[in-house]
Amino acid sequence: MSSPVIIAIDAMGGDDAPGMVIDGLKLAQQRAPDARYLIFGDSARIDPLLARQAELAGVCEVRHTSEAVSNDAKPSAALRSGRQTSMRLAIDAVRDGHAGGVVSAGNTGALMAMAKVVLRMLPGIHRPAIGSFFPTLRGESAMLDLGANVECDAENLVQFAIMGDVFARTVLGLANPSIGLLNVGAEELKGHEYLRAAAAMIRDGNLPLNFHGFIEGDDIAAGTVDVVVTDGFTGNVALKMAEGTARLYAGFLRGAFESSIVARIGYVLARRAIEKVRQRTDPRRYNGAMFLGLNGIVVKSHGGTDAIGFANAVGVAIDLLRNRVNDRIRTELERVTAAAPGAQVASA
Amino acid sequence: MSSPVIIAIDAMGGDDAPGMVIDGLKLAQQRAPDARYLIFGDSARIDPLLARQAELAGVCEVRHTSEAVSNDAKPSAALRSGRQTSMRLAIDAVRDGHAGGVVSAGNTGALMAMAKVVLRMLPGIHRPAIGSFFPTLRGESAMLDLGANVECDAENLVQFAIMGDVFARTVLGLANPSIGLLNVGAEELKGHEYLRAAAAMIRDGNLPLNFHGFIEGDDIAAGTVDVVVTDGFTGNVALKMAEGTARLYAGFLRGAFESSIVARIGYVLARRAIEKVRQRTDPRRYNGAMFLGLNGIVVKSHGGTDAIGFANAVGVAIDLLRNRVNDRIRTELERVTAAAPGAQVASA
Repeated sequence: MSSPVIIAIDAMGGDDAPGMVIDGLKLAQQRAPDARYLIFGDSARIDPLLARQAELAGVCEVRHTSEAVSNDAKPSAALRSGRQTSMRLAIDAVRDGHAGGVVSAGNTGALMAMAKVVLRMLPGIHRPAIGSFFPTLRGESAMLDLGANVECDAENLVQFAIMGDVFARTVLGLANPSIGLLNVGAEELKGHEYLRAAAAMIRDGNLPLNFHGFIEGDDIAAGTVDVVVTDGFTGNVALKMAEGTARLYAGFLRGAFESSIVARIGYVLARRAIEKVRQRTDPRRYNGAMFLGLNGIVVKSHGGTDAIGFANAVGVAIDLLRNRVNDRIRTELERVTAAAPGAQVASA
Repeated sequence: MSSPVIIAIDAMGGDDAPGMVIDGLKLAQQRAPDARYLIFGDSARIDPLLARQAELAGVCEVRHTSEAVSNDAKPSAALRSGRQTSMRLAIDAVRDGHAGGVVSAGNTGALMAMAKVVLRMLPGIHRPAIGSFFPTLRGESAMLDLGANVECDAENLVQFAIMGDVFARTVLGLANPSIGLLNVGAEELKGHEYLRAAAAMIRDGNLPLNFHGFIEGDDIAAGTVDVVVTDGFTGNVALKMAEGTARLYAGFLRGAFESSIVARIGYVLARRAIEKVRQRTDPRRYNGAMFLGLNGIVVKSHGGTDAIGFANAVGVAIDLLRNRVNDRIRTELERVTAAAPGAQVASA
């Protein structure tokens, strides 16, 4: 039942790689002691780091390559001439069955392009989606697509809904996640035609989803639904708008606490409570976006993250692997096609 | 030079109308004592309210109508059968020159539909846009479109950029506002084709705008640019996402301050400073979205606002009128067509 968890690691992706990566794996090891790592990258830089971490070194195997995908490389160029890069070799390891999943903090576009070509899509899925989760007033919710597809049609969104359902069951541990389609709500604006078509396909196709219907932008942080489904353009803007607003609020608050001596004393007294809020909204806690719909587990860590953030991304990959998320997406798609052969969500 | 400022008021729009409206006008009068109001609505309800406000009554004229646009009315239905509603008569007053602008807290879709038909577009503008402003880390910025157009083409966005430029000069008092086109930044995602086309039109057309280029979602609250240009779908989602995130953050913080006695004492000490943050991010302060591009000033107040919010929306209308925003948009469009006849931004 439980084969050993092996994760392929692109050690050269991210602003502070490979140091941040190795430190992250050390933290990840504390949480998942039985996981093993296939590390791809420059062994001249990785080996000395591992030499200082005997316990971690015991679960790691380093595969040397001197090439890496640069942050500003075009995906098409990385795909063409990056066959010996740490990122590509880590993905190849998943395809070849040497690892169950891959984690990289490198170039998002290159990672997506390589993963699509090397791993290919799950049967019935037309396009991959980037999914992640975030804090809400009611707990945590998942959202997809966060940037894999600028343009989406109704069928893509229905497939995202199915993948989001499995993602929320797997990563958030929810039994029957509610799913909302992001739209604008004003009466004059019923939103894009493809949104109404997607809603109709889910409702009329009798899909086995807990479909809430349309939601608006302010429903996301309110936690009105467990899974927010949207196109990659809107999802990317919404996610970054939330990050920006959180920083704005934190900045205003910092300024306020520094505005007088009394306020500073107040801050000192409330510091532990405020620290809890900071932890609850810490972007590192929500690091690790999954590329859903691929025939393999691919998790993207933020490039600017630190060891704590990278460890969380590795944790997401381990969760997805242990919970066999892709098997479940496959099963769900079969269940859907059986329940609603007319819905054509699995017509690929 | 300065003809008297007269604003037509739809007294029946908004959750707490007409009481909230009359209270709002009283506050507005304190800030702009020389403004006058043409109030449309049920005189049986309005007159008793005004009777208690002698000073305000002196600058108001009530035009009775028993009809009002309901919140759930379809724009097309309101347009067809709402000719005697308070909203429609207030817009008619602007068309007929009895008032310089109109403020309503009623049904957004109906207001937009009626305003388009009655006032028509400014020459050279194809579509109206909803514009508003919001707090950022660097001060305040403007954004449009916030929901008038779900689908936009490059030419629409260029026109929005021009209108946003004038809006920021007028309402924010900026001399040379920087303008950004909202996009997604990852390398693999260069965004919608029409965004690249709009950027090329502004750059290559040599438009007299301080064009920053593309921005991403987190640039909005950071205040990277003074004017954010986007389509109505994305703008609406982004704005509501920001509102939701601010509420989330405030909720977390409230919970934190209530989590222990020490934290509560800290809150009491820091209360004045926190109150300043609350004021700075108070949605009522940013109430009043302008319908830009129409041949008349139309300001939409949030339907759920109170007197303070409504007074701010009236203040926005007065600002726009005094600064002759529409004359300036006309001049700017002429300047643009003269500077870049090939840009075809004024081809309507």
